[in-house]
Amino acid sequence: MNLEERLSEAALRMKRSIIREMLKLTKNEGIISFSPGMPDPSLLPAKELAEVTQIVLEREGEIALQYSPTEGNDGLKEVLIDLLRHGGVESSQENILIITASQQGLDLTTKIFVNPGDQVICGLPTFLAAIGAFFAYGAECVGVELDDDGMQTDILRARLKQLRKLPKFIYVVPDFQNPAGVTIPLARRQQILELADEYDLLIVEDSPYRGLRYEGENIPAFQSLDTSDRVITIYTFSKILSPGLRLGWIVASPDIISRLVTVKQSTDACTSAFTQCVVAEFCRRNLLAKHIERLKSIYKEKMNVMLQALTDYMPDEVRWTKPEGGLFLWMTLPQGIDTSLMLGDAIGGEGVAYTPGTAFFANGKGQNTMRLNFSYPSVSQIREGIERLARVIKRTLS
Amino acid sequence: MNLEERLSEAALRMKRSIIREMLKLTKNEGIISFSPGMPDPSLLPAKELAEVTQIVLEREGEIALQYSPTEGNDGLKEVLIDLLRHGGVESSQENILIITASQQGLDLTTKIFVNPGDQVICGLPTFLAAIGAFFAYGAECVGVELDDDGMQTDILRARLKQLRKLPKFIYVVPDFQNPAGVTIPLARRQQILELADEYDLLIVEDSPYRGLRYEGENIPAFQSLDTSDRVITIYTFSKILSPGLRLGWIVASPDIISRLVTVKQSTDACTSAFTQCVVAEFCRRNLLAKHIERLKSIYKEKMNVMLQALTDYMPDEVRWTKPEGGLFLWMTLPQGIDTSLMLGDAIGGEGVAYTPGTAFFANGKGQNTMRLNFSYPSVSQIREGIERLARVIKRTLS
Repeated sequence: MNLEERLSEAALRMKRSIIREMLKLTKNEGIISFSPGMPDPSLLPAKELAEVTQIVLEREGEIALQYSPTEGNDGLKEVLIDLLRHGGVESSQENILIITASQQGLDLTTKIFVNPGDQVICGLPTFLAAIGAFFAYGAECVGVELDDDGMQTDILRARLKQLRKLPKFIYVVPDFQNPAGVTIPLARRQQILELADEYDLLIVEDSPYRGLRYEGENIPAFQSLDTSDRVITIYTFSKILSPGLRLGWIVASPDIISRLVTVKQSTDACTSAFTQCVVAEFCRRNLLAKHIERLKSIYKEKMNVMLQALTDYMPDEVRWTKPEGGLFLWMTLPQGIDTSLMLGDAIGGEGVAYTPGTAFFANGKGQNTMRLNFSYPSVSQIREGIERLARVIKRTLS
Repeated sequence: MNLEERLSEAALRMKRSIIREMLKLTKNEGIISFSPGMPDPSLLPAKELAEVTQIVLEREGEIALQYSPTEGNDGLKEVLIDLLRHGGVESSQENILIITASQQGLDLTTKIFVNPGDQVICGLPTFLAAIGAFFAYGAECVGVELDDDGMQTDILRARLKQLRKLPKFIYVVPDFQNPAGVTIPLARRQQILELADEYDLLIVEDSPYRGLRYEGENIPAFQSLDTSDRVITIYTFSKILSPGLRLGWIVASPDIISRLVTVKQSTDACTSAFTQCVVAEFCRRNLLAKHIERLKSIYKEKMNVMLQALTDYMPDEVRWTKPEGGLFLWMTLPQGIDTSLMLGDAIGGEGVAYTPGTAFFANGKGQNTMRLNFSYPSVSQIREGIERLARVIKRTLS
């Protein structure tokens, strides 16, 4: 049977993610990997979650093991309303849809807005799996270059002027962006919102790292600055609690939530009532706030160890971003170096892995860049790994 | 902001499911509902799952709370290979994709094969949420009438002859079909496979109820009869263990699995490692087999109570199917009665709910039919509810 000729256009468009293939390589012992965006495994709160699960299954097993409403569990939503209020975002039950982690948020949002050939605006670089979700529905990504303050608004303005058809939305990761590690300052958030107002555009705000700020002050979310229901914000518990639970939520106007609910029904019917009940109880017992404090203190140390190691080992021609939170920083090598080609030497020659930056560019650029993750490796691996990486880069430069 | 004019064709196509709206009504105290396809809440094995979760989080918390490979957890796949072999299906790791329950299986399968305007073949009636998934990708459903032995192969043959373009697949629920409760006998399975061979078609075999046979002998699955990699089988733990876990799996050729993995990456990245590890351990401890035995004995009793009550209370003009397993039976009233219109009187007048059959007909027919679920209500509710329903029907007939 010829499979190829039966596939949909969506299936034919889609390629395997490079991060995914990376992950396989780095399972080998001895390789220090800065590639995946995974939490520190030693910090996953297994003991606390085990206790909470006992309580939940004893008290509300009939709810936790049954179908959930597609919209999500009301109790978890109550917890989230509090959590959001704490972060400056006012919401109510009808503003929230519980999702099977943030990738589903990207999938559903794209599904309700994008027809093949439609355009969406995203950063250059931007989150790889967001490009994947857009691409699955045939979207064309219009890239806007970032600087150390995130998406450049003058370039965004120029791009919007050039487009003949309005894009379906602007996609932003405002805090500690994946992959660049940069954060959009307040003034620029306001400019982006003004442009969205002027052109009457939706904004998809992807906010997985917002809870993980190690320095500086929180900046208001797009969701809390928005006065005309044009912001759809996607949150997840993956980085602040556990990716293994596959749990996140979307905040948007009730009209948009209602459309998302309808497509979610045919996509996965509902999110696990089990993980929803467990996480709601975890939050009610104030364990999330405590856990985030712990993550912040350790990830801050790891970030600083990486920044110091970069200063200590990297040749002068190499630049990197200095994040105030999140899991990643972004490194730029001199023009002419292709980090995809260099990866073989890095893994094979030195036992160190990273994610080549070009994977994050919807326009195929960024050959001389890479993403480095500092949450997953240990402190000693970070110093050792950066030293190895510096050797690879020096070899490539010479 | 005008939301409507920004929506994708997929979003505009999709309507809320009638079952979903039903579920809301039937939360009211005093209403006996035969509508949702939910397990008996008192049988959900909360205690056993609590124990297993403790063990898993203690022993492998770093795996259970981390990202899973998109393909799924190898340990769970091992368990499933055994489970499948037990049911007559040979498989290996590359034949299996773990999914976020069977609705995702329908979503991903449709996503990789269906372009807008493509045709898929399904039963008249067929599973409502499968129609939803097909519809989301713009598929046109070509219906084939069922009889007491499921999809009628002579009608299928005639439909295939008429079609100018080959359909993307034939969708079947071979065992205790939702909604009709009927099972396809071996000879007819072979005929359907022969037609699929003749026309070189894929078959999507949806198999959520196969483990729940109360009478008669198991019939080989399409998957085990297939000799040319044309069958994609979707399984779920929702009915045999718990829908709250959102866990299922697909069995297909490695080429198809590989395509499904690629689209799953951008759809929800991976299925919960937490629920995968818990269910794998639950199965390893032989708790699943024990649990299914318990379900079977109780659901069999409920089914027989419903069949007896129908015999006792229903007027002569009413017919129903006699399932050998599963969760549902199917009732046909005299032509001219519209069960959607009758539902108001049923809920408001008698406090009994069902799912109007027309929801399961891709061609809008079936106005005089309804689906009755016997797993969720208690034995006494079943007798009382059927008595109430008979009163409503008699009123409508007179």
